[in-house]
Parts: sequence; structure tokens; C-alpha cells
Amino acid sequence: MCTAISDTQNMHLFGRTLDLEYSYGESTVLTPRAFELRFSELCAPREHLALLGTAHVCDGVPLYYDAVNESGLAAAALNFPLEAVYNPPRVGAHNVASFELIPWILSQCEDLRDAVRLLQNANVTDKSFSPAMPATPLHWLIADKSGCIAVEPTERGLEVHNDPFGVLTNSPRFSRHVSNLARYAHCSPSAPKNNICPQADISCFPRGTGAVGLPGDLSSESRFIRAVFCKSHTVNESDVAAQISRFFHVMDAVAQPRGCALSERGEPIETAYTSCIDTCAQVYYYTTYSCRAIHAVSMRAHDLDGRELTVFDRSHKESFSFL
Amino acid sequence: MCTAISDTQNMHLFGRTLDLEYSYGESTVLTPRAFELRFSELCAPREHLALLGTAHVCDGVPLYYDAVNESGLAAAALNFPLEAVYNPPRVGAHNVASFELIPWILSQCEDLRDAVRLLQNANVTDKSFSPAMPATPLHWLIADKSGCIAVEPTERGLEVHNDPFGVLTNSPRFSRHVSNLARYAHCSPSAPKNNICPQADISCFPRGTGAVGLPGDLSSESRFIRAVFCKSHTVNESDVAAQISRFFHVMDAVAQPRGCALSERGEPIETAYTSCIDTCAQVYYYTTYSCRAIHAVSMRAHDLDGRELTVFDRSHKESFSFL
Amino acid sequence: MCTAISDTQNMHLFGRTLDLEYSYGESTVLTPRAFELRFSELCAPREHLALLGTAHVCDGVPLYYDAVNESGLAAAALNFPLEAVYNPPRVGAHNVASFELIPWILSQCEDLRDAVRLLQNANVTDKSFSPAMPATPLHWLIADKSGCIAVEPTERGLEVHNDPFGVLTNSPRFSRHVSNLARYAHCSPSAPKNNICPQADISCFPRGTGAVGLPGDLSSESRFIRAVFCKSHTVNESDVAAQISRFFHVMDAVAQPRGCALSERGEPIETAYTSCIDTCAQVYYYTTYSCRAIHAVSMRAHDLDGRELTVFDRSHKESFSFL
Amino acid sequence: MCTAISDTQNMHLFGRTLDLEYSYGESTVLTPRAFELRFSELCAPREHLALLGTAHVCDGVPLYYDAVNESGLAAAALNFPLEAVYNPPRVGAHNVASFELIPWILSQCEDLRDAVRLLQNANVTDKSFSPAMPATPLHWLIADKSGCIAVEPTERGLEVHNDPFGVLTNSPRFSRHVSNLARYAHCSPSAPKNNICPQADISCFPRGTGAVGLPGDLSSESRFIRAVFCKSHTVNESDVAAQISRFFHVMDAVAQPRGCALSERGEPIETAYTSCIDTCAQVYYYTTYSCRAIHAVSMRAHDLDGRELTVFDRSHKESFSFL
Repeated sequence: MCTAISDTQNMHLFGRTLDLEYSYGESTVLTPRAFELRFSELCAPREHLALLGTAHVCDGVPLYYDAVNESGLAAAALNFPLEAVYNPPRVGAHNVASFELIPWILSQCEDLRDAVRLLQNANVTDKSFSPAMPATPLHWLIADKSGCIAVEPTERGLEVHNDPFGVLTNSPRFSRHVSNLARYAHCSPSAPKNNICPQADISCFPRGTGAVGLPGDLSSESRFIRAVFCKSHTVNESDVAAQISRFFHVMDAVAQPRGCALSERGEPIETAYTSCIDTCAQVYYYTTYSCRAIHAVSMRAHDLDGRELTVFDRSHKESFSFL
Repeated sequence: MCTAISDTQNMHLFGRTLDLEYSYGESTVLTPRAFELRFSELCAPREHLALLGTAHVCDGVPLYYDAVNESGLAAAALNFPLEAVYNPPRVGAHNVASFELIPWILSQCEDLRDAVRLLQNANVTDKSFSPAMPATPLHWLIADKSGCIAVEPTERGLEVHNDPFGVLTNSPRFSRHVSNLARYAHCSPSAPKNNICPQADISCFPRGTGAVGLPGDLSSESRFIRAVFCKSHTVNESDVAAQISRFFHVMDAVAQPRGCALSERGEPIETAYTSCIDTCAQVYYYTTYSCRAIHAVSMRAHDLDGRELTVFDRSHKESFSFL
Repeated sequence: MCTAISDTQNMHLFGRTLDLEYSYGESTVLTPRAFELRFSELCAPREHLALLGTAHVCDGVPLYYDAVNESGLAAAALNFPLEAVYNPPRVGAHNVASFELIPWILSQCEDLRDAVRLLQNANVTDKSFSPAMPATPLHWLIADKSGCIAVEPTERGLEVHNDPFGVLTNSPRFSRHVSNLARYAHCSPSAPKNNICPQADISCFPRGTGAVGLPGDLSSESRFIRAVFCKSHTVNESDVAAQISRFFHVMDAVAQPRGCALSERGEPIETAYTSCIDTCAQVYYYTTYSCRAIHAVSMRAHDLDGRELTVFDRSHKESFSFL
Repeated sequence: MCTAISDTQNMHLFGRTLDLEYSYGESTVLTPRAFELRFSELCAPREHLALLGTAHVCDGVPLYYDAVNESGLAAAALNFPLEAVYNPPRVGAHNVASFELIPWILSQCEDLRDAVRLLQNANVTDKSFSPAMPATPLHWLIADKSGCIAVEPTERGLEVHNDPFGVLTNSPRFSRHVSNLARYAHCSPSAPKNNICPQADISCFPRGTGAVGLPGDLSSESRFIRAVFCKSHTVNESDVAAQISRFFHVMDAVAQPRGCALSERGEPIETAYTSCIDTCAQVYYYTTYSCRAIHAVSMRAHDLDGRELTVFDRSHKESFSFL
């Protein structure tokens, strides 16, 4: 359960929450240009674009949850249970395993147009990274400052949808989320007009009542609606820091306090981390569940020509600035 | 528009959001024991309990929005428009202006029982602090580690309600919020049983769906419901820092991203600050809209015997810890 | 569980549903002018206005659920559990038992103004009709063509509220229902404007979507909202038969199909009957749960000067007109 | 805007509402076995099963909205705007115009299995009945006592879905309605458990509150949900007349009072008629908007071997049985 947002107001910010009841352990990971990428069915380029994002590093391989590359293209993988359809490798197609899609796209595509072109002939395979880690059902939000797409492996193939809302959550598929929106069309930051009984007076304390009907639960459908509402109506800030702050406020509205949703086995789900990438500057900002202060890694502050991953450990302890 | 919460799981945490479209300018303010308090109609004690909280200081007077005293009693004032009824001074009653209620109670009551006793004969007057600052309609949440009350000036007098939910928002009155809860009784962190059509199979991606129906808007009624749900179901943490972190996560679920609700005049409302008081340790934690890292002031770290206010300015600039 | 409506468009129609899980057995009952009324604490007039309505006749006494008198004043009694406060008889007041209120008012008041005047000094007592029939908690909708009031016995006395909506259901009290309306203010027969994300296109099959948010359940609160919406937006008809048909259509929207709500003991509730009174012509139209065709009794078709009740039995068998 | 229901409790009842803002004029029409059927692209059988249902008769041709045949197979056509995809005739397929589908199926299929077989190779064409009557976008509910299918012409071809709910409304497509159900899974006729705050007591007048969240508006999505709830929870009756009465009560819960929803051009929509077919006895029961008493036509009471349509005109005037 996750929510991803791409926001192109004033600057391009792209990020996501990761909402789970367990953790493989994730870090901020920089993959430099000469790091040796390997794909199960595809040739990996010797030289490639550098990547920065959140990954679980397993046997030296960065399994990215979300990342940006050095030319400002970003991608996030989100859970897509009951819906994702993976196929066996198909002759003539780019056969890419689900866990490889982010590095495969970001290592070679300079912008969203490149990505769309590459995805046209892609086939997502059900290859597992290892016997202990079966393929997770996924779909992806991919964006740069020019736009945003939702990429979904279904029984019809790999569907690529233009996403004018810049939002993706989990199942059901993107088109379903979009059609749900119509049922919340009235939601507004302003107090509603009295339509129910125009003949009589209905008075109340009006603040916030224009969005009555907006769902407040943590289901995938409801987070999609709430993210669209909050993203559409929060005020854009001209200041970079304030705009980043705004992005995290929108994310707070869809984040999961530990215990408010439980897994099928009763385990409390939490928003393990929230990211916000300034894709043009290639700065990766993030917070964790237990440390709400914003930490950051700037790609440009590091050597991108190396061969080794740089792994930045994360704080999981709240810090307090005493005055 | 504000939300206050008192949480007595493991430790007593008490705090609130302040949601407004404007700001008088507020700071964290320590009122020491010998600071000269003055009340319009009441005698002020020469020596009194020290107070720590958020206040707008005007002409040397701390106008508290929320505070704790040195024996662990805390109070928060919240907007109560259309409902608050203030009266002229009444002979024989404790005539206390609305802006004086917090220092009047916290300066002399050691615990909630003291406060209840004092409030029994109180009369909240409509006295303004100054011609430029007319009396704001208010009600109060007052709590210590033993319990919590909602205090409301209505046409029936000053009503004192036991508040087992530990939540207060704005209008309408407390009893209305409580009766609203029944309409959301089914909301649960677990997936719902199929009651609508037990004869047939209804499958879906279940996570978070148990709370479908929980309102997601920023109206006072909806924030009350959401605060109760999140407070009731977030997992208690044994670690102090984690428990404080949990409190802020609950608050995030009712906080107001700037622009998602507008004032009657169309101005964007925002959660100016969020506080979380460890009442037993008398530590005041807070975040501001534009600085999500937690800052703190500990009462015990300061001299409480002075005569002068200590005013701690607040950061309004997001800070990023670059790795 | 019941819903009452007073509608003064074009003509005055007044009626109700009776929603119960059991039945004492009710009939359409005409009380002529010389029928001997008796009240437990009040003098009954020797000559009085004639009444026509639905009643359970017990020991020769018509216990009216709803009725109209010969000058066009109508009243309906509705369940008011958890809220109704009845008192012992009080010296100097009109002490009227809850089951007597309808005949007491309708037998002597020519119009709503008379009723309001009489109610000013009324005190509803908790007297039972018999040991086997303890006093039911009730409130009343009383109306003529000039207006409508909700009458509620609470801890504050007998409250008389002007009811501009012309609707009453069950608990909670009237003022609560009215304030609930603000949360459904947006509901409209027309398709909504896209407020949630004005920047993007949201298309759907729009019919009926303007009222998304209108509650569809059978709780008292939801029936009040739905009755107000349907009453406000159904088209008025100039033809008398069509206007009566319209009234029953509105009632169908709040009626209770047997089993869709259960009593506390699990018994299925049903709308035992629905009435619609043309108060100016004094015609009592009704349907029963198991006979949807409209039956009618016209007061003017009967001798009103008699001393004996006329009891019209009701059909409880659906009839079909075969072509 | 229409709602169709197939109910196989105790007996098989099948019916629908027709919800429109205009009328072509419809009647109950019996098509005997020797009536000469004609199809635009298909050979019509010389002898066929007799049909009884509601049709608009145009140039001697019965355009059926819903009907049953003499062996108990029933079908209803419902509006399917924005979704229906009709194709040009295709060689090798059964090319059937949308307005021909009901007579084509019912004239030759003895049961649902026959219909499913025939539909497998069907292609719904966009042929208009006449220049003045362009093809309406439609989908169909087809059922007999053994089961029920939803038949939808989409971009994927003619989809045939098993419909265990026995309900169909309008757009979006059937699978979307089914997945919507999960969001109303909790709705129950019994009072809900207090899940939102189990630590505290939440009391209210509980009747009907178990289904809070059930949508009350007239959109296609909401009528589907409400029909499923009401159909699932209304009590089955052993008496035939009572079971038919029950069917109409369920239909009342999704019927459209004139004006509660408006067309895109602002015209009031109404439920023009409601039908309920006893498919085993082949009796067609119906009510109209302005005549709520149930009229009926029994197929077996008429000569089925003729060549001419029998057209039964409908009452549009409420009738009242005066006592």
C-alpha cells in the first residue's frame, strides 16, 4: 500500500510513501554510471545514467522502490495485487523482470518520451529475484517535468496511461481510480451552496465542509481520491523549501499511522518512508516513520563516475531540537 | 479550526493543531512563578504555578493557546463559533474572560480535580483583551494523566463534560460530536465482513477498506471522527520518542495542508503549528507548518522562579539534513 | 421508526410512514363530533371537532397515530426513544398523556395557531394507557396549510420548533436533524461541477451523480435527509391525483422494505402503512405494506354528528388488476 | 437510467424500472407464435416462442424493453451510455441489431443455457431501427430460474458475465459495479459493533444504522449497490402475492421520483414503469409512475397461436378505492 505523486507546479517534485507491515530494510542508494547493471533477459549497457533513490540492496544489487536519474526522469513501483499480470519471456520483446523495470528505464531514458518508446515493446516477466523473494505484483508511476504516465501489466499487455492527475496508489487499475473521481467531483475547499433544500436556510460552521464526502480511510481507492484533492488544492509556493514542505504535507494526508490499517494477518501497516525528489536538481528528500525531520541526498554532491553503490543509512529515531 | 488530543496510553501526551488563515504571531512562552498575572475581574495570586505553552504575547501579556503547568495539568483553547455564549460578570461567580481561562486554571490547579472544582462556579465573560482584539468564541480541552474534560460556555452556563475520547475540535458542541460517532461505529483497521450480500463473493484488495466511510474532509465534525479513529487504533509504543512520534502521526491525519480548506473570505487555512506536551515531564514539543522537524522546550531546564516571561521564537523555514 | 412529511406545494398534503417490527393492529378511524372523548387529567369537551386518521382502537378508545380534523389541522406521532422526557402532572399546566396529545389538540384546535397556543402551557405526562401498554416515547409533527411545527418533550420542557422542512423522523431531536442537513448541502438533482481537480477532465455517465453523498440507509438521521431532498426536488403537479401520487413516491424513498433494518431483537421492520392526508378536503389516503394500491376515506362522505367511531378495516393482501 | 433485478428466492421474479425524461409511449405487448418477426441481418424463424413484455410498437414492430417468453426465459435492455460498442456486421457471426436482441433471443431460446450458446457467436450491430431512432447504447440482463447473466457489448466484443447478484443498472460496465460492492461490504440490517473506539461507549438509537454508508442517490452505481442490499436482506415470503409485493418494495428503493435527478438538459427523470415478471407462470405485473396499483397480464390467458400483436394500454391515472 503506497501512494505516489508527481507534481509539476513551479518545479517538478516526485515522491511516494511506502506503506508496509514489514521491511526488507531500505536505504538511499546512489548507483553511479559505471556500476555494473545486470538484467535477466536483457543486455545491460556498460555505461549508463546514474540513479538515486530508495532501494533494498540484496547481494550487491539495488532493488529500487523509487528513483530519479541524472537527467531528471523518475519512477516509483507500487503494489498492484490481484491485478498485475506477468508473462513468460516473449521472443522479440524487451523481456524485463518486474524488479528490473526501474533501473532498466532510468539507466537509459533521458526523458519521459524515451521511456514511453522503450515501454512500447516491453514484456514484464514473472522472474523472481531469488527463490526467497518471489515477484511482487507491481505497477509504476513514471514522470519527468513534462508529464506523467501510469504503467500497468494486465491481461491486455503492458498498458501505458497518460496520468494528468499525477497520482497513483495500488489496486485496482488506474482507469478505475480515474472513474472513481467522478463520485467525489463536488469536493471543494470552499463551503458548499445549499442545493439540498434551497427553499430553507441551512446554517453551520462552514469551514472545511465543502469537501464533505472526501474519503478518510486508508484503502487504495480512498488514498487516490484524497491525494488528487490535496494536490489540486494546496497552494503553490514560490520558495523551493516551502514547495517541498507542501509536498510532504500532501503526503501526510495519505500516510498511514501505524495500526490504522492492518494486514490480512493482523499486522499493523505503517508508512515506512516518504520521499520527495526534486527531479531537476536531482535531490532526494525523505522522512521515515520514526524520524519526521527531512533528510536529503544530492546526486550532484557525489561522484557519479564510480563503479560502486553508495548506500546512505537511514535514521529511525526521532530527533528533537531542544531550545 | 483546530484539533486537540489528550492521550493517556503509556504516558500522558496532550496537544493540538492551530488551524487558521492568519496569524497574530505565536511563540513558545514560559511563564515563571513570580510573573505578575492580572485578571480583569479576579484577584491574581502573587505566587503561582509556572506555565509553558504557545502564546501570542501582547503588551507583555501571554495569551495562551495551549499550555501545561508544572504539576502536569494541560489545557487548550479551540474556536467555538456560533455556539459559545459569554455573559456579563455575575455577582458571586468567578468571572473570567475567555482569554484568561487558561492562565487562571493552570496557575492554581494542581490537577484535573482542582480544575473541575474551580470551574463549577466560573462564569466566562465576553470581555475583550483590547478593542482591537474582540473576544474569540472558545471552548477548552483540559486534561492531566487521570482524565480529560471538555469545557463549553453555552446558553446553559459553563458545561463541563467528561471526555472519554480525549478529542476536541470546533463547533458544534461536544455532545454533538459524540453522537456523530455512532454513524462511524463500523470503521475498523481490519477488512470488513461481507454483510451486504453474504450469498455472493465480493473480493477486493482489502487493506484499509475496513474504515471506508471515515470522513476525509477538514470540517470540525470530520476531524473529530478521524482523530478518534486514529488515536484509538494507532499502536502504542513503549519508547518515549516513538510515542511522541505516534502522537504527531495522529495529528498529521487531521492537519490542514494550506489551501485544502478556505475561510469564508477565500483565504487558505493552514495548520500553523502542532504541539505535543509530555505533561509529566513538562516538555513542550512542537512543529510548525513550514518546519516539520520537532523542536522542544523543557520546563525543568529553565529557572521557574523568575518574574519575566521567556519567549522562544519559532522556526518557519524547513531545514534539510544533507547526507 | 417513522417518517412524517407536511407538504404545502399547490395543496396541503400531510402523511407518514409507520415503521415497526410488530403491530397492535391499526385501522382508519373516524371520530365524530359527539363521540365521548376522555382525558386522564383534562376535561374533555362535550362537542368537538371530528377526527379522521389511523388508530389502534383499544377498549373503545381510538389511539391515533396520525389524523386530521374537520378544519384541516393534522398531526402525527413518531417514536422518539432515548430523548422523550415525560413528567408527572404539574399544577397549572395542561397535563396531557402522550397517547392523548393528538385527540386533545385536534378535537379543539381549528388551525396551527390554536395548537401552538394550547401547547404553550402543556405538560406531557408519563401516564400509561394501560398496564399492558406503557407510554411510548413520542414527538409530533403538527401542521395545517399555513405551516408546520415539531413538538418535542425534552428535559427542557415541551419544545415547539417551527419546521420549515416539513419533515420529521425519529431520534435524535429535531435540531440535530436540521444541523445534519449542512453535511448534505451539496446534494442536487443536477450533475456536479468538477471541483475536486478542475485542472483535469473527469467524465462519467452523469445522471443522478449530483446527489452522491445522500445517505441510503434506514436510520432516522438518513431518512430525514432523504425526505428533505426528495420533497424539495420532486416536481409539483397541478393535478390533484398526480400530486398525491408524488407524495407517495417521496414516501417510497424512505419506506422500509421488510428486513432491510432489524430491531434490537433481530425482528424485521417494515413500513406497516403510509398515509397521505389532503387536509383541505379531509380525505385520508393510505397504502399498507402488503397492498400498494391507494385506498381512501373521505370525512365529508360520512355523518360527522354521530357518537360512535367508524372503523374502516384495511386490506393486507396485494390485489392485481388482470387485463 | 434503469434498474433490473432477477430474484430466484422461492420463485423466479424478474423485472426492471424504466427511468427516463421522455417517453416514446410503451405498452404491454404479447407477441404470439405466428407473428412475423423480421431481423435486419438474420433469418427469422417462421414459428417461434411467444413473448410478453413492455414494448414501444413502431410501424407494427414491437421494440421490447423487457420481456419473458413462454418457456420462462426473460430479458431486459438497459441504457449503457459511454460504454456500449456496436460493430458493423461481421461475416460468420450472428449479426443482431441492438433493438433486435431481445426478440432474437427470446423467440428461440428455451432457457439461459440456450441463450448463452447463441450469444457466443453474436455481434451487436449499430443498425438503427429508423433514421429518427438511432441505436441506443444498451446492455442486457437475461435470466431464467436457473441463473442470470449480464451481456455487454464492449470494445472486447460481446461479453457475457455470470451475475450472481441478479442486478444490473446502467454504465459503467458490470465488472465495475461488482468491484464497487466491496466498498459497501459492511452494510447490514443490524446495528453495527463499535469498532471505531472500542474503549469508550457510543450509544445511539440503533435502528437502521447498520447500513450507514449505503448510497441514497440515483446514480447508476448507487442504484446497483442499493438494489443488491435490499434484494439480499428483504425477507422472502412464501405467499406468491407477498413475494411479488416484496419485489416491488425493493424496486421502490431504486425508483426515481420525478425531479430527483435531471437529464443533461435539465428535464426531470422519472420511473416510467416498473415490471415484475413471474417467469414460471408467465405473468407480467407492472406499475406506472402515475398509477401505483399493480396491473397484470397473464400469457396463458391468451391465445398464443395467432399472428397479431395484442397491445394492452396502460393506465396513467392514479386510482383510489374509496371506502
